[in-house]
Amino acid sequence: MKIGMIGLGRMGANMAARLLDAGHEVVGLDRHPEERTELAKDGAYLVTSYDELIAKLEAPRAIWLMIPAGAVEAVIGELQPRLAAGDAIVDAGNSHFQDDLRRAQALATDGIHFVDVGTSGGVWGRDRGYCQMVGGEPEVVQRLAPILAALAPSFETAPRTPGRSGELRPEEHGYLHCGPHGAGHFVKMVHNGIEYGLMAAYAEGMNILRHANAGKARTGVSAETTPIECPEMYRYDFDLPAIAEVWRRGSVIASWLLDLLAASLAKSPDLAEFTGRVSDSGEGRWTLKAAIDESVPAPVLATALGERFGSRGEADFAHRLLAALRYEFGGHEEVHS
Amino acid sequence: MKIGMIGLGRMGANMAARLLDAGHEVVGLDRHPEERTELAKDGAYLVTSYDELIAKLEAPRAIWLMIPAGAVEAVIGELQPRLAAGDAIVDAGNSHFQDDLRRAQALATDGIHFVDVGTSGGVWGRDRGYCQMVGGEPEVVQRLAPILAALAPSFETAPRTPGRSGELRPEEHGYLHCGPHGAGHFVKMVHNGIEYGLMAAYAEGMNILRHANAGKARTGVSAETTPIECPEMYRYDFDLPAIAEVWRRGSVIASWLLDLLAASLAKSPDLAEFTGRVSDSGEGRWTLKAAIDESVPAPVLATALGERFGSRGEADFAHRLLAALRYEFGGHEEVHS
Amino acid sequence: MKIGMIGLGRMGANMAARLLDAGHEVVGLDRHPEERTELAKDGAYLVTSYDELIAKLEAPRAIWLMIPAGAVEAVIGELQPRLAAGDAIVDAGNSHFQDDLRRAQALATDGIHFVDVGTSGGVWGRDRGYCQMVGGEPEVVQRLAPILAALAPSFETAPRTPGRSGELRPEEHGYLHCGPHGAGHFVKMVHNGIEYGLMAAYAEGMNILRHANAGKARTGVSAETTPIECPEMYRYDFDLPAIAEVWRRGSVIASWLLDLLAASLAKSPDLAEFTGRVSDSGEGRWTLKAAIDESVPAPVLATALGERFGSRGEADFAHRLLAALRYEFGGHEEVHS
Amino acid sequence: MKIGMIGLGRMGANMAARLLDAGHEVVGLDRHPEERTELAKDGAYLVTSYDELIAKLEAPRAIWLMIPAGAVEAVIGELQPRLAAGDAIVDAGNSHFQDDLRRAQALATDGIHFVDVGTSGGVWGRDRGYCQMVGGEPEVVQRLAPILAALAPSFETAPRTPGRSGELRPEEHGYLHCGPHGAGHFVKMVHNGIEYGLMAAYAEGMNILRHANAGKARTGVSAETTPIECPEMYRYDFDLPAIAEVWRRGSVIASWLLDLLAASLAKSPDLAEFTGRVSDSGEGRWTLKAAIDESVPAPVLATALGERFGSRGEADFAHRLLAALRYEFGGHEEVHS
Repeated sequence: MKIGMIGLGRMGANMAARLLDAGHEVVGLDRHPEERTELAKDGAYLVTSYDELIAKLEAPRAIWLMIPAGAVEAVIGELQPRLAAGDAIVDAGNSHFQDDLRRAQALATDGIHFVDVGTSGGVWGRDRGYCQMVGGEPEVVQRLAPILAALAPSFETAPRTPGRSGELRPEEHGYLHCGPHGAGHFVKMVHNGIEYGLMAAYAEGMNILRHANAGKARTGVSAETTPIECPEMYRYDFDLPAIAEVWRRGSVIASWLLDLLAASLAKSPDLAEFTGRVSDSGEGRWTLKAAIDESVPAPVLATALGERFGSRGEADFAHRLLAALRYEFGGHEEVHS
Repeated sequence: MKIGMIGLGRMGANMAARLLDAGHEVVGLDRHPEERTELAKDGAYLVTSYDELIAKLEAPRAIWLMIPAGAVEAVIGELQPRLAAGDAIVDAGNSHFQDDLRRAQALATDGIHFVDVGTSGGVWGRDRGYCQMVGGEPEVVQRLAPILAALAPSFETAPRTPGRSGELRPEEHGYLHCGPHGAGHFVKMVHNGIEYGLMAAYAEGMNILRHANAGKARTGVSAETTPIECPEMYRYDFDLPAIAEVWRRGSVIASWLLDLLAASLAKSPDLAEFTGRVSDSGEGRWTLKAAIDESVPAPVLATALGERFGSRGEADFAHRLLAALRYEFGGHEEVHS
Repeated sequence: MKIGMIGLGRMGANMAARLLDAGHEVVGLDRHPEERTELAKDGAYLVTSYDELIAKLEAPRAIWLMIPAGAVEAVIGELQPRLAAGDAIVDAGNSHFQDDLRRAQALATDGIHFVDVGTSGGVWGRDRGYCQMVGGEPEVVQRLAPILAALAPSFETAPRTPGRSGELRPEEHGYLHCGPHGAGHFVKMVHNGIEYGLMAAYAEGMNILRHANAGKARTGVSAETTPIECPEMYRYDFDLPAIAEVWRRGSVIASWLLDLLAASLAKSPDLAEFTGRVSDSGEGRWTLKAAIDESVPAPVLATALGERFGSRGEADFAHRLLAALRYEFGGHEEVHS
Repeated sequence: MKIGMIGLGRMGANMAARLLDAGHEVVGLDRHPEERTELAKDGAYLVTSYDELIAKLEAPRAIWLMIPAGAVEAVIGELQPRLAAGDAIVDAGNSHFQDDLRRAQALATDGIHFVDVGTSGGVWGRDRGYCQMVGGEPEVVQRLAPILAALAPSFETAPRTPGRSGELRPEEHGYLHCGPHGAGHFVKMVHNGIEYGLMAAYAEGMNILRHANAGKARTGVSAETTPIECPEMYRYDFDLPAIAEVWRRGSVIASWLLDLLAASLAKSPDLAEFTGRVSDSGEGRWTLKAAIDESVPAPVLATALGERFGSRGEADFAHRLLAALRYEFGGHEEVHS
């Protein structure tokens, strides 16, 4: 099947390559065409304008956007007047599901279809395939099935879930039509919210292991420093790379994130090349806002998100205020070790 | 190699069977020998007393305890006078690492060795193998290597971590000598602390998905009920079993816990057979206490543990107090929908 | 000064009475005028229609809305066509600051001013006065100063803050012009977010005290129930009403909320008349959303909000899922004591 | 009444002065007697040895310890052999309640009584009085009532709680016999746990207000930085000292901590003289451990404690690990603004 793809950065280029491998035709448009020569060699047809893109596709067209969330609005603005009824725009980036609902409605006035695809897999997707969560009208999603299936990891990458039988369903290949407009990005949003929580759990646990030698530190006696209780119990110098590795086999907490963690630590046991400013890409925030809207408690996900903000110094004033209050009521001076 | 095993319940019997499969000899002691006939058929030699157990093993003996943490003290009390210098007791249950340190010291007065083994794998370990985290003296752990290796899942169960090369190390088979006495149970403790965090992350995320139809509910207008903002945005009826399934392939949050989650939901999408009283088995608590002792923040793990306590009604008085305060300052009555 | 007041429920009637006491004139409009006879006796002039309300006030008019947030939009819709340039609408309810910005802009097209007033004090404000946080144009807020001052508690209700000197500022009387449109409700919103956190801190602490006799409970031995460590340390039957009382004098945690807590417990030490379904009124949610928008960590406030959601059963599915996972990997059955 | 007092530092000296004011006799012992000349002028009798201290008191003696928790064990070791049956040692510092239980038992073998007093009031207690939470045998606590009453703030410092009537009870003066040995320090421990939660709530709220101008910042467009949603909504430059001040009168969140917060900000709106390394003094940790032992959820208190640890850099490795994982799965580089 032939598809237009706008955005051939790290994610888009890998996806295009995977589609080409599977025998699909890709017409690509990117702001930096000069950097995409390799893709052209792989068989992609690169264009340099929206008009050319449209012209190279046959109705009903399908155009896959793999661009930053902040750029989607403008690109749809370019596409809408150029497309015809029956065509479909697929937003496979990290848009907010509430924007999907609005955009789908606006495009529908011209008979243009909108499909939202939440995509997980990161830089590994080229080889491992992409987990895809899809929202939109059933017949439009159905039309895209060959593309979705080609991008998906395929059934063989995991054993079948006990209790499932009969013909394989799409979700067992790695893509799922989750529901109407926005459903794909909603599920992807929550996926990332969970991801933050999982990552925080590993990070906190590893940090506890790393400080298991806290009893070895010599701490001066001071009214401002709480001495460690039972220092003789905390004299372990753990080999974190080995621990991450051993958990990969047979343990309850084995996961793909743990595989990556083991790889990180194998390369750099102290992670000294990182400073610990942790970005967040929006979905974690939206997950929390959705939880709030739904009145659903999500304290673990909220805390995980807050840890990221805090890692970037956003709690500094709060901490100064705590220190100021302690000084105020108790005359406590700050301690600098 | 020949090993004594005390405790042939669900975990112990599976371990014994796995050891027998691997060609080891197992002398088993259990409080309910009549229930262990199958194990005897598999080749285990079942005894009915401590004396008989000791007599059937040759020095230096190794006795593996697979019993509840609360029973370890008494069993060691039975064994210590019967064992000889050079023998080793292996506590493979869920003991607190601080108890290990004390017990190792007490046994050392008689020249008896102590090894602590944290074991993960649950009811699946018989087939998948057991991830083992080991603490103790190097030469004693070395002596047990054949047993540990037989119980471990083996290297083949996961691809090699990028960055690792050369001869395979024990942790790549699924067992690791983590450090001196208590190190095994310490690492296992943190493993479980992480497990609580991971589980909470999935549970909260799934709960957000389940309530994504909150906008469909008719809510009466009341000063005591916050109406949902943008109800038109929350009209999704998600298929949770399919979502858990699609995440198993290619997504960042794929894990063994997710595999189990998908299996759970495949069998019972509403999980109606559960009431939601979530037990905790001690390690999560100890992880938090260790974090506190080390001055390491672990808010996600703490919150996950608190959710379990709360699921058992332990927050009820706190909630009543909040309702009472709201009544006191604002005259707010409780709302019952 | 003469003011129109729409909404004479619990809050509005008390405010009107306080204004009448201070010598102001109040023209009141309420959906249930028959219930407001007492207010009429106190000197309020009650009208029964918007037109009458407008007619009874002289330009530039000031109309104070003390109505549910959900009703503000409609009431402004009634007022806007009836008011003249220079008139002012004051929204003293619990509106979202983002709605203020929108409404101020819409009213400005007709030259009508908008003032947002966040009000704290609850049912006690009639006697104690109302803390008021105000947003709007400086000259319009200035014009309202007599009203704000009359509603405020007055300087005498608290000792002067060390470090402050010279002429008293409005905030030392209990009202503050916080900034432009929305600023009043923004500050009130955060006030309530803090309130949730404070309440949760007291509630959790009191709950820990209430369970300080946990060591007295007889717990059966079970692999599914973690027995209490050191039960002999937890045998205290605390007198919670007395503890709340003693903290009111001289302690670091003395507060008005603690005063109310002491009053609650004095009346009902077990709070048995409450079931513990804790409502939330919107501001706590908005505070969290604002924190997220600003990338500011607020894990304590987020957790406090989540506890309220959880008190209403909104975590139940998450808990069932945790129980299901434990069953799946460990064969753990739920325990019902 | 005559009392011995060991430890005349900031807390002890103020207490001694308050007791002298009330007409009690104080025999003081301190490691630095040369610094206590002012106290001597006020009428305290200063001694330089334990023997002299004992000699100056009449049986049954009462000796009040106002020393760091870490020094209590040694001082009791000096006192026990020198005291007689019927004498009483009062530990008014911040000891762990579990140590009280042990010490009370050890002293009881010589017929010496032990009383634990949790004391709140900080550097302000000299003038405001000390809130005292007391544990011990009823008749011994009764004997100390004149001392406790003199140190307490007195009834007049707060209005009587509605619902209370009849003769004033000790807790209405500011001291309470909470229960048997350890009860005083237990209640004080939870008091401090609550204090951490309250402080965190104010700190987080103030931090949200401080960043309410986040929409004014120019943020570059980047896939690694989530741009603020609705920047036009976050353009407030709040006057934090004024806001803290306005909340002091009439608001629901008025408290003594807020009074101190207002004083801090009045002196230094940016708190620039603080770096934000927040110490903790042990009770917050013990509160959490007690909550864990009791199976009581305390996520707000746990999170507040974790924030303090984090403020001291104890989360740094966890943050680096998160950054490393993001790099691993998504190729995300750290962003440094």
